[in-house]
Amino acid sequence: MSRKLRIVLVHPPDESDASLRAHAVQAGLKKAGYQLVASLPADFHLPERIAEIQPDMIIVDAESDARDVLEHIVIATRDERRPIVMFTEDETESSMEAAMAAGVSAYIVAGLQPERIKPVLNVALARFAQEQKLLAELDDTRMKLAERKIVERAKGLLMARHGVTEDKAYQKLRTMAMNKNLRLAEIAQRILDVEDLLG
Amino acid sequence: MSRKLRIVLVHPPDESDASLRAHAVQAGLKKAGYQLVASLPADFHLPERIAEIQPDMIIVDAESDARDVLEHIVIATRDERRPIVMFTEDETESSMEAAMAAGVSAYIVAGLQPERIKPVLNVALARFAQEQKLLAELDDTRMKLAERKIVERAKGLLMARHGVTEDKAYQKLRTMAMNKNLRLAEIAQRILDVEDLLG
Repeated sequence: MSRKLRIVLVHPPDESDASLRAHAVQAGLKKAGYQLVASLPADFHLPERIAEIQPDMIIVDAESDARDVLEHIVIATRDERRPIVMFTEDETESSMEAAMAAGVSAYIVAGLQPERIKPVLNVALARFAQEQKLLAELDDTRMKLAERKIVERAKGLLMARHGVTEDKAYQKLRTMAMNKNLRLAEIAQRILDVEDLLG
Repeated sequence: MSRKLRIVLVHPPDESDASLRAHAVQAGLKKAGYQLVASLPADFHLPERIAEIQPDMIIVDAESDARDVLEHIVIATRDERRPIVMFTEDETESSMEAAMAAGVSAYIVAGLQPERIKPVLNVALARFAQEQKLLAELDDTRMKLAERKIVERAKGLLMARHGVTEDKAYQKLRTMAMNKNLRLAEIAQRILDVEDLLG
């Protein structure tokens, strides 16, 4: 983690980024050697700005009502997840739960000492990497399950259409996939699509 | 989170639990209204003690070399996951990564202020709950995929044995499952087991 992380700071639209808190975050980032590329209000422009800037990390500084800010963050990171660190004074359980569900990697209450920012960010990066691994594994397993269902359905269809055994239907599928240079699940999906079209 | 959490404090075997750090943790817990049920050294007795006590949360206080303590924690929570909070001065990347992989819900560097303990623990509980949900979903998806494979294999076996169609084989499986009051995957597994036995 020695390269310079590009960080975007997000603050509530009604709080100034020149506030004492924001200043403490900025000082901590500078001290820790990070690059603050923008300071943005949490409004409906946020997703667009985040997409433009492509930061390595988003730091949210929301003194109170963390949930309002979170809503904009969720939309801004829905398509592309990024490590998110929240500094807040909001201790309500519902805000904490909303933050966890939104994939916030660190939710720090009353912990805004500039000298602590570096370890907090490093822990958040490690947590983000770990969670991404878990989510990728879940995606992969879901995909395999979905593909298996599609292949099974296509196989059943070929068996019924051509009056062949399961083995033969499977061989047929494999040959079609090889000829078209497609994956088994892809050719199976095409067969099901055609069946849908023809009724 | 209003009920009194039963907490076990774990410290390195060579550090006294009467140290200044340990004292700060204990003071913070008391102040926040938690119940400290035991203070244990991280040694090979730890898994047994944790299993006896069944705490709601484990707090690790490891000034340095967090990884040594983590090894014992991993063994102690392997079969039954629990929220784990680490207070440490260990800022090394490898320790952080080891902690994330071990399922540590909060890794707090240089953040041992008694007044901050309560929000830290609450965030850790929310994170633990969120992660358990994700892991349960992964388990469930993996199980479905494994079961599907077993059912498919058993179906193929019945088709070959009895010279029946896929539909018929599936009907046969369903009937057997209902008669034995078993799930489809369970009866499929029994069929495969018998096949293995008979060669």
